[in-house]
Amino acid sequence: MKKIINNPDKYLQEMLDGIYIAHNDLITYTNDDKQCLVAKFKKEGKVGIATGGGSGHLPLFLGYVGQGLLDGCSVGDVFQSPSAEQMLAVTKEIDSGAGVLYIYGNYNGDIFNFDMAAEMADFEEDIRVESVVAGEDVASAGPTKDGKNTRRGVAGIFFVFKCAGAAAEKMLSLDEVKRVAEKAANNVRTMGVALTPCIVPRVGKAGFSIGEDEMEIGMGIHGETGIRRGKLEPADKVVDEMLEKIVEDLPYVYGDEVAVLVNGLGATTLDEQYIVTRRIDENLKSRGIKVHRYYVGEYATALEMAGFSISLLKLDDELKEYIDAPACTPFFRQ
Amino acid sequence: MKKIINNPDKYLQEMLDGIYIAHNDLITYTNDDKQCLVAKFKKEGKVGIATGGGSGHLPLFLGYVGQGLLDGCSVGDVFQSPSAEQMLAVTKEIDSGAGVLYIYGNYNGDIFNFDMAAEMADFEEDIRVESVVAGEDVASAGPTKDGKNTRRGVAGIFFVFKCAGAAAEKMLSLDEVKRVAEKAANNVRTMGVALTPCIVPRVGKAGFSIGEDEMEIGMGIHGETGIRRGKLEPADKVVDEMLEKIVEDLPYVYGDEVAVLVNGLGATTLDEQYIVTRRIDENLKSRGIKVHRYYVGEYATALEMAGFSISLLKLDDELKEYIDAPACTPFFRQ
Repeated sequence: MKKIINNPDKYLQEMLDGIYIAHNDLITYTNDDKQCLVAKFKKEGKVGIATGGGSGHLPLFLGYVGQGLLDGCSVGDVFQSPSAEQMLAVTKEIDSGAGVLYIYGNYNGDIFNFDMAAEMADFEEDIRVESVVAGEDVASAGPTKDGKNTRRGVAGIFFVFKCAGAAAEKMLSLDEVKRVAEKAANNVRTMGVALTPCIVPRVGKAGFSIGEDEMEIGMGIHGETGIRRGKLEPADKVVDEMLEKIVEDLPYVYGDEVAVLVNGLGATTLDEQYIVTRRIDENLKSRGIKVHRYYVGEYATALEMAGFSISLLKLDDELKEYIDAPACTPFFRQ
Repeated sequence: MKKIINNPDKYLQEMLDGIYIAHNDLITYTNDDKQCLVAKFKKEGKVGIATGGGSGHLPLFLGYVGQGLLDGCSVGDVFQSPSAEQMLAVTKEIDSGAGVLYIYGNYNGDIFNFDMAAEMADFEEDIRVESVVAGEDVASAGPTKDGKNTRRGVAGIFFVFKCAGAAAEKMLSLDEVKRVAEKAANNVRTMGVALTPCIVPRVGKAGFSIGEDEMEIGMGIHGETGIRRGKLEPADKVVDEMLEKIVEDLPYVYGDEVAVLVNGLGATTLDEQYIVTRRIDENLKSRGIKVHRYYVGEYATALEMAGFSISLLKLDDELKEYIDAPACTPFFRQ
């Protein structure tokens, strides 16, 4: 394991120490627990938006706490859910009477804890909480059991944060902010490709391997199995295969307008991400799908995994307004 | 070579295509040459600031073209200087009568071409050009030959861009903007550490190797030899060794105030960069050096190299004002 760390058991706390040192103008923590991160400035009467999840995905999740995006985030150990108590502490801190919306990824640990936190907020604190579970990964789409969404939540959750955050900033009600978040969640799809595994610091070695000439299409951001492993192909061919699956899934059709997120998983250069962007643009143009805005860079990583993901968000006039709204957080400014 | 690319010979052009697609609100090109990148909005009467250099270091150099930073950038192939003709084309486009300042890294190819471009701008176009060569790497400090600066220009050039860009935005004269750039260049020092090599796409394999348990302190962003290779040590120990050398070099002393840049070289996670930030803060506190502001992230990469660098900029009231000034470019907003 070649990482610049000290004791793996102190990885999370030392990382959080650094985050608070570097960004003390924008964020702080509550409940005397650095894993309970909240925005420094609270807008009275605004719906609070909280997220949470495991570490190892920076800038996800905590990097999006700030003006125009999220109000709080509970942070778990690497690839582990934070506790319901930590989520509740964040909820109490960010509520200012208008209620709190939870937006988080479709993982069992997170669902269990966020549901418990929502119940505690309601019964113990009289705070109204609503939840939107983001799961937009095309590779894990199903077959669905009992009508349940089996899709993993991956980089596309950024678009859900962005739209809901802008709606809350506009002082919409909890029901309205939830409606906007659901609309964004229902209109986003993501597909990823991994070239190398990543190593959880406490484990010290990769849980799987990918051959020197191989890639795995559809791999999750914790190394979950994808849909196809094969020889690494030229960028254009990889993009075309991923887009084919993404576009067919919603589907996105001729005349649609979209926002596009090209997300580096950790070790892949920006150069490569822009080579990918070029092909996405060609491909979508040939389908008559118009791109309103591109985001390119590391938005949701998987530690030092090499690879990238593509997310499309289908826009209408309302979502376009929210996507274009300003935001100011440690990792995202627009 | 595990990269998401097409033909290595098209790497630069396809990457630039992606850049213009994603950032067409802020940047464009001149002279019908995508390697001649300029800001879309020109402020009449302002000193123009141009940089340039090889690709493979994104967001350096072109990512800092925009309001409050640079006006233009000529882009060479991976780790190669752009041509004097390309630099001249950018110079002509960004001059609006107040002259142009070149700020670039201390590499022979860049110096040769920028000097030639400056002469051509003067003789052929009657544009006054001044140059500041940034070379702040501690590992390549000397011994100096003939009083020449042998230091490589690395991530700290961001601070020179930032200060000069803010001074130009304030409509200072060419001489004044040059004075500010020189002051920043003289007060910044950087040291890096590399954990893995990187691969130039056209070459297809690494030019050197670093053992699985090794690091190289002082390695340059093109893989230039550093000052010490040894076993990878805990983050705190690595930071302390690097800071010792940086602090002694200028020197930075008790009571000084600095801006700090923690720069990821490509494959190193943000998590690790924040673990490093925490130790820098402890170390500088113990020396009585006050940190005015931290920047953490990828500011000057070496393709997919793992590792990071630390840069300190010693501040006075003037530089502090320029560091804090707003900026809006494809890769940097404040």
